[in-house]
Parts: sequence; C-alpha cells; structure tokens
Amino acid sequence: MNGASIAFAGATLDRADHVRNDPEALGRLMDWRARLLVLDGLDPAIDPEGRLGWGTLADADPASELVFLGLLGGKACFAEVSPKLKGNVSAFNPALWRALATMEHDDLAIYGTARSLIDWHARHRFCARCGQGTKLSKGGWQRVCGACAADHFPRVDPVTIMLVEHQGNVLLGRQPRFPPRRFSALAGFVEPGESIEEAVAREIFEEAGVRVRDVSYVASQPWPFPSQLMIGCHSHADDPALTIDATEIEEARWFSRAEVIEAMAFQAEGREEGAFIAPPPHAVAHHLLAWWLKQ
Amino acid sequence: MNGASIAFAGATLDRADHVRNDPEALGRLMDWRARLLVLDGLDPAIDPEGRLGWGTLADADPASELVFLGLLGGKACFAEVSPKLKGNVSAFNPALWRALATMEHDDLAIYGTARSLIDWHARHRFCARCGQGTKLSKGGWQRVCGACAADHFPRVDPVTIMLVEHQGNVLLGRQPRFPPRRFSALAGFVEPGESIEEAVAREIFEEAGVRVRDVSYVASQPWPFPSQLMIGCHSHADDPALTIDATEIEEARWFSRAEVIEAMAFQAEGREEGAFIAPPPHAVAHHLLAWWLKQ
Repeated sequence: MNGASIAFAGATLDRADHVRNDPEALGRLMDWRARLLVLDGLDPAIDPEGRLGWGTLADADPASELVFLGLLGGKACFAEVSPKLKGNVSAFNPALWRALATMEHDDLAIYGTARSLIDWHARHRFCARCGQGTKLSKGGWQRVCGACAADHFPRVDPVTIMLVEHQGNVLLGRQPRFPPRRFSALAGFVEPGESIEEAVAREIFEEAGVRVRDVSYVASQPWPFPSQLMIGCHSHADDPALTIDATEIEEARWFSRAEVIEAMAFQAEGREEGAFIAPPPHAVAHHLLAWWLKQ
Repeated sequence: MNGASIAFAGATLDRADHVRNDPEALGRLMDWRARLLVLDGLDPAIDPEGRLGWGTLADADPASELVFLGLLGGKACFAEVSPKLKGNVSAFNPALWRALATMEHDDLAIYGTARSLIDWHARHRFCARCGQGTKLSKGGWQRVCGACAADHFPRVDPVTIMLVEHQGNVLLGRQPRFPPRRFSALAGFVEPGESIEEAVAREIFEEAGVRVRDVSYVASQPWPFPSQLMIGCHSHADDPALTIDATEIEEARWFSRAEVIEAMAFQAEGREEGAFIAPPPHAVAHHLLAWWLKQ
C-alpha cells in the first residue's frame, strides 16, 4: 500500500546524516538562517496559517541542547531540548489530538520526528550504564556519557498492530482508554527474541485467545507517542472463539465487512453512528481497515 | 516466506506473560524445579550433547537478578543477570560464531532471547531519567527506578536490511569488519519519524547513492547482538550508478543471478569460491537471497 498517505510518515526533510557526523559542517549550519521549531512543551505550536511554527536559533534558551532535524528547502532545521522538559509522562491531551487532525501531512511527519527525539533526550539525561550525566552528540542522534563514554541512541520501539480475519469477519478490540464505541486493531510491542510474525501471533493469543496463521505485512507507520514503529499486519484465524485478557483490552468482537464499510463511511462524514466508531484517519489501524476493504 | 526456518526465531518457549505481572505466581515457579540457563558471560555454554546447558536456581549467584524467560515443557526457565556482567562491549567473538553454527534451532531462539534481555539489564542498572539505581521488575521484562519511579523496558531496535534489484542483478555490500570476499545485503537502523519503507530508501541512498522504488517486506528476524529486529525487504532501482559512502561500507557491487546461485551453492558445500562469499545461513540476508532466487 502507499506509505506516503500514512500520517507521521512522508517527511520531505533531508535528514542529511553526513552532517551529524561532521561537527564543523553542523556548526556552519547553526547560523541566522537556521530554523528552530516552535513547540509548546512537547506539543506543536501552530501558526496563523495552520502550519508548524518556526523561529530562529536566537529564540532558543541558551541552556537548551539542539537537535538537528535535517534540511528543508536548503535550510537547517533544529528543535530544542529545553532544560525545563521532563519528558513525556503526560496522559491523553485532547488539544494535541485536535491539532493533529488539521495539520498538513509534511508538518505531521516533521513534528513527529522532532517530538520523538526531544522527548527521548529529555528522558535520557543520565547514563543507564553508570548513572552519570550524558551529553547530546552527533546533532542529537546520540548521547554520550561523560564518565564511562557509553553511547546511547534514540529509541524506536517496534509494535505489531494486526487485523485478524475469520470467514470474512475482522477482529477488533477496545482499550479502556478509548472513547465510547471506538474499536481498533489489536496491538502489542515486539519483544526481544521474536520475529514480527511471532509477535503478531503471541499478542492475539494473549489478548483475545485466538490462534492465527498466515501472518502478512501490510504497512508501517512511525508513531511519536513516544517513539513506536507501528508494523501493520493481516492474519487468519480458523477458530473464532474469544477469550479476552481484561488486563489488556476491555472488549473484542468480530465485525462483518458490511459493518466495517458502514463505520468507515460514517466516520468520513463525521457521524458517530454504525456498529462501532472506526479508528481515526491518522492511525495505521484506519489504513489497515481501508486496505482490507479493498481486498 | 517461512519465518520458522530463520535463526533466532521459532522459540518453543511459552513466554507466559501473565506470570510476569503476578509476583505470587512468579514466586511459586522459582523453586527447585525451575531451570537456570548456564552462560559463560553472555555466551552460550554448550553441554556434551551439543545443547544449551541448564542448571537450577541454586546455581545462581545470590547477588544476581533473575529474568523469567518463560515455560518450557511446563518448567519455568530463568537466566541470571550477574553483578559481574558489564553489558556487551565486546567485539567480534569467533568462538561464539562457531557455537551458533552448530546449535539447534530452538536453542538458538531461547539463547537469543536470554542474551538480549540479560545484556540490556547489565547496561541499564541506572535510571536514564534521574541517574539513580533501577531494579528488575515483572520477571525481568521491565526495570523500575527506586527514586523517580520511571519504568524502563528492554530495547528492540528495528533495522531494515534489503535487497535492491536492477535488471535481474542484486546490490550487495561489504562492511569493513566482514571476512574477506563476504558480501551481504545493505542494512541500517530505522530512525524516529520513519516508516520501514522510508528507512529502506534512505539507507540505500546514503550508503550506495541509489534511489529505490516499490519497497516490499519479505521476512523478519530477531538478532541478539544486542537486540535488533531485522526487517528484510526487497526494492527496485532504475539507475544502477553507485556512490559509495566509505564511512559506512567498504564496497558495493551488483551481482548477477548466476553469481548468487553459484555463491549460495559453494557456501552449502563449505567452499569459499565464486564471485563472492554469501552471508551465513543464520543471517536473514542469506534468507533474502534464497527467497530472491526463488522469485
């Protein structure tokens, strides 16, 4: 499927990774032409035209560390790790979700990259190996311990998210934090020692008691809350009997193709009707359902 | 493709994740019946039958932390985070690679899971958020800071590894650390803010100067050195001109289908002949080439 249509992917930013490893080149880019992403804590600051706000490096707190995001139209773009940032420990933020729904595709991708990186820096000011202070390095794509010299790299946490199909129906579930009547694809983190296909099968069995076969990859999405790589898959079940793990999900149900078609159509019209409310367009689960309906 | 044939995947261990969250159930499993994986540092200790060695919890250093790997034939399996372990900072270890080549498929998967987890614990004894000490929690699938209560989870780092095809030829490269004449698929870490497909395209352009299209997923593999999730992909190039980034790879070349067939056949016979030496059978790159030859 066309990955470019997926929210938080498709940044037009040139990551220019050779610059990260070249302190002189990086220094030359940090002049008055450089752009600084304006943020409100970790949230985007939207300008009057509805676009991401950008200032200059002069706007940065002198005590901040700066992350080099890449080049946009030839200009170096940075984001600020303010000493005030304590890292993402905040819960659901309705204002952020409303802002995301109206942001341009490219802005979403740049914002997501910046948010994941800044949040990671704010939560990794100390060395996990020895407990001493770390410093930003390589334009913000690394931190280095001042005491034991250990290198630390930003996290990307792979998560499988998957449709399960049985006789033309699809299995969807509800997490307790979801808005009323919202159902989405089951999901879970890939663990050490697992392939993607094994993680899919384990998660569906743990959460819903269903054994699956023929796992196939559909699409992926970077998800910056805080730094997941969502790996969207499809699978088949022979036995539809459900055993729900109530510590993970509140409910899981099989929905017919007709119910999914209706739910997606109602959502496109902004109506909260039908058998369930579909996952929002910026979630990869929405793309998985749209892909499934086309099969 | 059949994921079960890929080295380090296919563990028959039941991860029994409900036990991790239940200290009483976990405590009941930690008795004289429980098995303790025998390790030599981070390396496997192979028993006289060529299998992974197992002892009992009585063999553990009382100062060690214990990781619950899961249930194998109804028995709880643990691995030990010894206070002596400083985490994986060692370079290439030829004895380890020889041991891996002869290990049973299931043993490889269990060993890989244990190695990734133990190594992560040994390198995360302090809280990256506040610098204070952390303690193993949830059977070793988490660490918790005693001071700021931050949760920390084992890392799984997604890496794309990809074949690039142009007019029936395939692009392979050499890292400086490879044995002489070995070529393998290009690879690189997925970064925050990227989909899998974007990471593939960026890495190939950075390393070899080649633009690709039509990226597709082929297979995945957990790789425990220290904790990568290898995501194997295929892609197409329209222009075969190469611009090598010498900081990343030493050489890259297009190989014909006939050269790949010959290299894979020589390798199966243990002969180091042909246009290049193919990646070893326990590497996902080997599976990618075998898959490609079948297309």
